[in-house]
Amino acid sequence: MSEKRLRLALIGAGSFVRKAHAPALAAMQDRVQVVAVCSRSHKSAATVAEMLPEPVEIYDHIPSLLAVETLDAVDVVLPIPMLPDVVQMALEAGKHVVSEKPIAPTSGRARELIALHQQRPNQVWMVAENYRYEQAYRAAAQAIADGAIGKPLVFDWSLQLPVDPDSPYYRTEWRRTNQYPGGFVLDGGVHHVAGLRTVLGEIVEVGGIHAAHREDLPPMDTLAAWIRCASGAVGTYTVTYAAGSPLSDNALHVVGDQGSLRVNGGRLVVHNNEGTQEQTFGRPFSVELELAAFVDAVQEGRPHRNTPEEAFRDLLVVEALLGDGVTG
Amino acid sequence: MSEKRLRLALIGAGSFVRKAHAPALAAMQDRVQVVAVCSRSHKSAATVAEMLPEPVEIYDHIPSLLAVETLDAVDVVLPIPMLPDVVQMALEAGKHVVSEKPIAPTSGRARELIALHQQRPNQVWMVAENYRYEQAYRAAAQAIADGAIGKPLVFDWSLQLPVDPDSPYYRTEWRRTNQYPGGFVLDGGVHHVAGLRTVLGEIVEVGGIHAAHREDLPPMDTLAAWIRCASGAVGTYTVTYAAGSPLSDNALHVVGDQGSLRVNGGRLVVHNNEGTQEQTFGRPFSVELELAAFVDAVQEGRPHRNTPEEAFRDLLVVEALLGDGVTG
Repeated sequence: MSEKRLRLALIGAGSFVRKAHAPALAAMQDRVQVVAVCSRSHKSAATVAEMLPEPVEIYDHIPSLLAVETLDAVDVVLPIPMLPDVVQMALEAGKHVVSEKPIAPTSGRARELIALHQQRPNQVWMVAENYRYEQAYRAAAQAIADGAIGKPLVFDWSLQLPVDPDSPYYRTEWRRTNQYPGGFVLDGGVHHVAGLRTVLGEIVEVGGIHAAHREDLPPMDTLAAWIRCASGAVGTYTVTYAAGSPLSDNALHVVGDQGSLRVNGGRLVVHNNEGTQEQTFGRPFSVELELAAFVDAVQEGRPHRNTPEEAFRDLLVVEALLGDGVTG
Repeated sequence: MSEKRLRLALIGAGSFVRKAHAPALAAMQDRVQVVAVCSRSHKSAATVAEMLPEPVEIYDHIPSLLAVETLDAVDVVLPIPMLPDVVQMALEAGKHVVSEKPIAPTSGRARELIALHQQRPNQVWMVAENYRYEQAYRAAAQAIADGAIGKPLVFDWSLQLPVDPDSPYYRTEWRRTNQYPGGFVLDGGVHHVAGLRTVLGEIVEVGGIHAAHREDLPPMDTLAAWIRCASGAVGTYTVTYAAGSPLSDNALHVVGDQGSLRVNGGRLVVHNNEGTQEQTFGRPFSVELELAAFVDAVQEGRPHRNTPEEAFRDLLVVEALLGDGVTG
């Protein structure tokens, strides 16, 4: 193995760490050594530690972890309300940081963190937005760039993502106790806005209405909105976390003047006068790709797509969807 | 045949008369005698006359036609800008009137006509909105009323209805020369709003953005909007007349807390915990059903679904979609 492996600590040991981050980091053992896991719950930390290929230290106190001088980087996967303060501490401790989306619960707090990061140009800060590394959305963007559907004119994206009371995301109390604006609509919204921006480019104006159908999902669980892109394309975005429907494929549908496409996480279908082409996508998964890009950025100074500025744009659009429609 | 057949004149002899009204009236020969066809174009009138089962008089002057005392009713199928004045003349001449949608190009003009009609309670005025007589939309409304999907929470409807330069609607110059607000977006919009109101009930708030992608379809060809219903359901409506997509079924998708449905003109699919049921619909077509309802209303005083007040609500919603979002 390389002598120059990145020494990284996981901060957080919740369900998404177990599902995505820990396996992705374990698969990059030749480039990354996970040296520590930090969690308030020793049991959760121990569970994650068992998933990793090498022994790790377990911490329950973030400042103690950040005081470790030989630590290069942290991967922060915490409840949204806790993210900003931990990112700030880690940046101030001189560490490279990859932190889960959204960049912060509000754009005001995000601005403060971006200002802090700009004073530390030698530290990488990536806001993990896996939609910007989803192969299907990248392929859709490439198809549009290649002219496969001509000029995009109109789009629609309707998603039903019912929160099952048995799911780990439901059982995570912080997601359901109204601790940040928008609840699930913000949490999922930054993903979908990142997906839209990946495929269709910058968003300049939006308008929306939200609803709270389920009392167990405050402050809201449903959003219906129109969106205008800088390209001139207009379309709609509809999402509910309150109920599901097998009569929908949850795909973004884009209609251009020379063809159309449908794309969701695993599948891209493009139709034009040459016929219909379908592509499906599996590994590497987007979280694997973005964490590899983080290591490339730290070790080789390579640019990556998940800058805080991009995440800030995503958040501004979601705030506009929930508020006055101005995207900043 | 009955001695009491309704004596009706067709005013207008354009493509939709030939496609729908004349065949529907011909099929009701036992209840309706088409006694005249009135058109500025003698050739068009003669073409329609040949489609009818009995000889008709041909007129090129509406006041002369309306002066015929033995005439009971008129079916007005004219360009949108001409509709209101002809409806007014026919009502003032004491005739029963069925007139094509929209009720008028603007809600202001519609209000004047409704006031005029209210002074003539013995005359039937139907605004032909075939979506209120489409079997599939009626069946969807009934499924919701029966609780098949529980409480409707969210919906999405995305339609691509490309105007082909070879189509008769394109060749109708008045549709493309910006003679009324909204162009095709108004023309089709009242249909879709009627369909939404049939399935989901009253609409109370909307917001939208429109775009003009094709120079040959002024003043606009694309609309993206959110809609809030009195029931609490929210959703989106996206329509373009600029381009098509075979990757969409143009169906209204409604998600409830106990199931979901998809409906378009010919097909209804309902999914719930009992499985998935599909129904397809053919004849009688909606124009046949609404013209039969018109005859029932005139001859038997039966209520019908296409009152001017309903058409006025459709128009108010479309005006709100194009304007300030207030539905009146």
